[in-house]
Amino acid sequence: MSIIVVGSVGLDSVKTPFGTAKNVLGGSASYFSHAASLFSQVNLIATVGNNFPKKYIKLFNQRNIRLDGLKQVAGKTFSWSGQYSWNMADPKTISTELGVFANFRPKLPAQYKKSKHIFLANIDPELQKNVLGQIKGRGSKIIGCDTMDFWIQNKKKKLLNLLKDIDIFFINESEARQLTQEPNLLKAARAILKFGPKKIFIKRGEHGVLLVSGKHLFTAPAYLMESVVDPTGAGDTFAGGVMGYLAMTKSKSIDTLRKAAIYGTIMATFAVEDFSLEGLKKVSSIKLKTRMKKFRKLVSF
Amino acid sequence: MSIIVVGSVGLDSVKTPFGTAKNVLGGSASYFSHAASLFSQVNLIATVGNNFPKKYIKLFNQRNIRLDGLKQVAGKTFSWSGQYSWNMADPKTISTELGVFANFRPKLPAQYKKSKHIFLANIDPELQKNVLGQIKGRGSKIIGCDTMDFWIQNKKKKLLNLLKDIDIFFINESEARQLTQEPNLLKAARAILKFGPKKIFIKRGEHGVLLVSGKHLFTAPAYLMESVVDPTGAGDTFAGGVMGYLAMTKSKSIDTLRKAAIYGTIMATFAVEDFSLEGLKKVSSIKLKTRMKKFRKLVSF
Repeated sequence: MSIIVVGSVGLDSVKTPFGTAKNVLGGSASYFSHAASLFSQVNLIATVGNNFPKKYIKLFNQRNIRLDGLKQVAGKTFSWSGQYSWNMADPKTISTELGVFANFRPKLPAQYKKSKHIFLANIDPELQKNVLGQIKGRGSKIIGCDTMDFWIQNKKKKLLNLLKDIDIFFINESEARQLTQEPNLLKAARAILKFGPKKIFIKRGEHGVLLVSGKHLFTAPAYLMESVVDPTGAGDTFAGGVMGYLAMTKSKSIDTLRKAAIYGTIMATFAVEDFSLEGLKKVSSIKLKTRMKKFRKLVSF
Repeated sequence: MSIIVVGSVGLDSVKTPFGTAKNVLGGSASYFSHAASLFSQVNLIATVGNNFPKKYIKLFNQRNIRLDGLKQVAGKTFSWSGQYSWNMADPKTISTELGVFANFRPKLPAQYKKSKHIFLANIDPELQKNVLGQIKGRGSKIIGCDTMDFWIQNKKKKLLNLLKDIDIFFINESEARQLTQEPNLLKAARAILKFGPKKIFIKRGEHGVLLVSGKHLFTAPAYLMESVVDPTGAGDTFAGGVMGYLAMTKSKSIDTLRKAAIYGTIMATFAVEDFSLEGLKKVSSIKLKTRMKKFRKLVSF
């Protein structure tokens, strides 16, 4: 099984209380695809400029990630610069340069069309919708989608329109409240279900995750970490773990979704242990299983 | 088995976005003893004034709570008034009137001395220490203790001195950071272990609980609730569930402590469903077991 992901591949400059990283690989699709590729093949759709370092292309190639849909065009690669304070919550954006991303018109390569799983990583809901429109046989596919506060604030209508066609929606805690104007998280989740998604993962950062469907509820705490170096990409990595596991198991049962949530949680711990993709690129199936075991021990009673 | 609890029994006036309650039963020892009494006999030590309503004495009598150590003296009962905002986090205290509590010198009734479990609910660390001094055969007892930000700020030395003799310390997330000046919760917990307690429960409110000992880690999410009416006493109730379960099982193994954390979590959900002790007084063993089952389902993967 394979997964299509459309999203950003970019260069990040990040400052946290534990260090800095400059012009390093970032972007929602980068984190997602690295996490998901541990479970199944990933078919990437994104764009980069001609300043995009070859070493990062190599990094993608070292994983089970197809790049037929990665367009390298003249211009600058999308770049983001941000800073985290001590609480390591939402970063302060210092600058965003769209570069070649401003003219990004994602196109689904013919050879991707067999993928049963599609993930619309956090980009403009109009672009997400555009990709969705290129997918044939929607009924047999599983469509996941992420977003962010910026789109909720500036393109809420487009986002709500998109949500009608989404199977699995990923959103963080504060965004769920923002989208629904409902302070109680469970009520917020139920309100989002009414917009269309069949399942919702509410990402709570260091407080774990909540999975809500019409019939089912699941909650898990986060893995306890003594050191978080850089939280950038944690949410995209979580989604990568979830969608990757779903594609691998070819199941969408509630039990599979619960396990997927844990795999997503564990994958995210690797991402935040280091800057950029440094943590993720070291993850092996064995390391993943070992940490999964530790997590089970941490939460069992 | 029985548990001694020393703490406050008072009259609360609470305003939340969901309603108000005036001059209703409150106080750390009230919540604790009601929760713990579902598991084992509770031996209460507290003081009330002559304005303390008889109906609340009856309420204690309806549970397995001995009142030999509850002194009713001339004067006003301790009273607290507070208000919660929409996020239902820490309340704003409007007034605190110590009343007869100002001259409270807790005395351990001889008939309590067989209790193997002792809980020093949130009161002045000097009073907590005083009670501890009256306990003979400390080595064979299990001493639990709670505190609050006020004592950390104003009597930190006394509190640290007390912690040397504590087996199980209950503290909430922000207080743990305040006490240790350490933003990372796991590091904060490990720093508190160095002060003396053998085990620490870090209460995270709607984000669950963390149990840390020298060797073990356990974390559990909170029970998902669509409606929290009044969070007052949630922490005391949690401790009541934990200590009650420990006394009932006569065990202090890590597996028992994990289960105790879940019982504490579940008991707290009953407390916050209504004002004062209204939620807790309706809890039966059957209701507890039913909710425990639901919790297992909520978190299993």
